[in-house]
Amino acid sequence: MLAGRMNNLTPYVPGEQPQDGVYIKLNTNENPYPPTPRIKEFLSGMDIARLKLYPEPTSKLLREAIAEAEGLSPEKVFIGNGSDEVLSFVFFGFFDGANGPLQFPEFTYSFYPVYSQFYDIPYTKVSLRDDFSIDINDFASTGTTGIILPNPNAPTGIGLPLADIRKLLEKTDRDRLVAVDEAYIAFGGETAVPLIEEFDNLLVIRTFSKSSSLAGLRLGYALGNEKLVNALTTVKDSFNSYPVDFMAQKCGELAVRDIEYGRDVIQKIIATRERFVGEAAKLGWYILPSSANFVFARKDGISGKEIYTKLKERKILVRFFDKAGISDFVRITIGTDTEMDSLLAAMKML
Amino acid sequence: MLAGRMNNLTPYVPGEQPQDGVYIKLNTNENPYPPTPRIKEFLSGMDIARLKLYPEPTSKLLREAIAEAEGLSPEKVFIGNGSDEVLSFVFFGFFDGANGPLQFPEFTYSFYPVYSQFYDIPYTKVSLRDDFSIDINDFASTGTTGIILPNPNAPTGIGLPLADIRKLLEKTDRDRLVAVDEAYIAFGGETAVPLIEEFDNLLVIRTFSKSSSLAGLRLGYALGNEKLVNALTTVKDSFNSYPVDFMAQKCGELAVRDIEYGRDVIQKIIATRERFVGEAAKLGWYILPSSANFVFARKDGISGKEIYTKLKERKILVRFFDKAGISDFVRITIGTDTEMDSLLAAMKML
Repeated sequence: MLAGRMNNLTPYVPGEQPQDGVYIKLNTNENPYPPTPRIKEFLSGMDIARLKLYPEPTSKLLREAIAEAEGLSPEKVFIGNGSDEVLSFVFFGFFDGANGPLQFPEFTYSFYPVYSQFYDIPYTKVSLRDDFSIDINDFASTGTTGIILPNPNAPTGIGLPLADIRKLLEKTDRDRLVAVDEAYIAFGGETAVPLIEEFDNLLVIRTFSKSSSLAGLRLGYALGNEKLVNALTTVKDSFNSYPVDFMAQKCGELAVRDIEYGRDVIQKIIATRERFVGEAAKLGWYILPSSANFVFARKDGISGKEIYTKLKERKILVRFFDKAGISDFVRITIGTDTEMDSLLAAMKML
Repeated sequence: MLAGRMNNLTPYVPGEQPQDGVYIKLNTNENPYPPTPRIKEFLSGMDIARLKLYPEPTSKLLREAIAEAEGLSPEKVFIGNGSDEVLSFVFFGFFDGANGPLQFPEFTYSFYPVYSQFYDIPYTKVSLRDDFSIDINDFASTGTTGIILPNPNAPTGIGLPLADIRKLLEKTDRDRLVAVDEAYIAFGGETAVPLIEEFDNLLVIRTFSKSSSLAGLRLGYALGNEKLVNALTTVKDSFNSYPVDFMAQKCGELAVRDIEYGRDVIQKIIATRERFVGEAAKLGWYILPSSANFVFARKDGISGKEIYTKLKERKILVRFFDKAGISDFVRITIGTDTEMDSLLAAMKML
C-alpha cells in the first residue's frame, strides 16, 4: 500500500443516487421542478465552439447577477463548484484550529466533520435543545477557530431568526469567521445577508442545487466582505483556477435573472410542504417545524431505518441517519403534490 | 484581518483570459478547433429537467467510455473537475512529505509548487539538461515522498520516451507514487498507460482541455491501479462529492467516443506545428523540439517579456515566464494555420 494522507480519511457518504428512474426520490433534497426554461433556450442555441476556451476564471457575469439580486457589490460574491466546494475552501482558508476548536451544532450537515478531518481542524459539537432547535447562547464567544451553522439547520429543517444570528455575531470575536450555510434559506428562513455590511467576519454560503433546481450543474456561492471573498479566491487559485465551467456560469446567471419563475417554484414547494405536514400529523406523525424543502419526521414505535426500508420497498427513497439521538427520524424531501400523495398513502401502511 | 491559512498562500496565476475576442489567443494552450459536433446535437435535444437531480457521483458512463478507449477496466479511471482538480487530489492524497520531499523538474507546470505550498509538502526541483530535456537519472530513487513530471514537459514541450518512464518506475521505491501528467500526450508523446498493469504506483493524469477542445467544460481524469483510484475517490468524497456536473460527464463521453473527429483535429494541429516550426526557423528563431500543442521559442537579442509585449500590441497573446533560465523564451500555443500565419507576419517585425 502506498503511503499518504488518503489512508487516514473517512469520506462523506452522499445519499443514494439511483440512475434508473424507478424511485420517487425524496432522499437528497432535490427540487422536484425543472429549472427555468430559459436554460433550454440557451443550450439549444449555444455556440459549442466557446467550449474550446477556458471559462472566465472569476464567473464575472454570474457574480454580477447574484450581486444585483442581493443588493451587494460583485466584489462581495464568490462562486464555486457547488456549495460543497465553497464550504471546503471556507474550512481550509478560515478554520486553522490555531485559536481553539471549530464549533458547529451537534446534529447538522454531516460533511462538516468530514472537512474538519480532511484539513486537520479540531472541532466541538454544540448540543441542541430538546426540541432540536439551536440555542445561540451555547456557542462560545472566544477560544474557537470559528463557527459554522446551517440556517435552516439540516437535517432538522428548523430556522433561526435573524435576531439570533445577530446575537451570535455580536458575541463572537471579530477576528473569527462566522459561516452561515443558507443552502435552504429560500424556503422560509431569514437570511443573514443584511448583516454583511455590519460584520466583516460573516460569510453566507448558498447553493443553486435546491431552490434553483440545478443540483446537476454544481454551483454554489458565498456572500461576504471583500476581504473574505479575496481570501476564498486565493484558496481557489491555489487548488484549481477554473472550477466553474462555462455552461454552469451561464445557466446559473439565467436562473438568477428569472426571478418570477424561481419564486413560483419555491411557493409551490412551500404550499406542498404545509399540506403534507398537516396530512402527516393527522396520521399520527411527529414533524419538526420546517423552513426548508424537507421535513424531519418520526412516528412512535418505528425506527428511522425501518421507515426507510419499508418505504424503499414501495419505491420511495427517504434518508435516515444512524446516529444516537436522531435514529427515530427520517428526512423527507418535499416533492410534487403527486409524489407526496404517494408517500402519504405509503405512510398509512406503516 | 481574520486568522487562517489563507494568509500564507501564493496562488497560481493562470494565463490571461480576455473575454472580448479581439486577440489571437495563443497563450493558454487551448485547441483552436471546436469540440465534436455531437455535443451540439446533444445540448439541443437535452431534457433540462435532468439538471434538477445531482449528477451520478462517480461519472460512471464517462469512466466506461475512457476505459474502453484505453483498454483498461473502468475501476482504473478517476474523473475530476479538470486535471487541475485531479492533480490537487493527487498532491493531497499521495504526497504527505513523510518520507522526504516531492521531486519534480526545475522548469515545469507552475501549479506544482503552488499545490505543494497549499498542502504543506516539501519539494526539490530536479535540474534539466542544457537542452531543457529531463534526465531520469537525476531523480532520486529513494528518500522522496513521490515524483511528478509532465510528459511532454511544459513549458518546454519536450517529450520523454516510454523507456525513460519505465526506467524511472523501475528505480523508484514501489510504495511511492510516480505521477505522469499527460495533459499534452495526444500531440506526439509516448503514453505511460501500457505500464499501469505492471506498476501499481503509476498514475497517469489527462485532461479534456487540450486535445478534446473542452477547456470550457472542466474535465480531467487519472488512470492507474484500482487502489490508487479508490484513494482518489476517498479524497474527492472528503472534499466535494459531486465535482463533475451532468453536462460535463455527458459531453466528455461524446468527445471520447468520437474517435475519428478527435484524431483529425490532433493531426491538423501537429501538421500546423511542424509547418510553423519550419517557418520560424527560417526567420532565425530557436524552437525546442515539441511533442505538444505549443512550442517554446526564443530569438537572440530579445527577451521573452519583450516578445510578449510587442506581440500583444499586435493583438496576439503568447505567454512568457519571468524566471531565470527561461526568461528568453515565450510559450506559443499552436492555433489554426491562419492564426499562425498572422503570428509569423508579426514575428518578422521583431
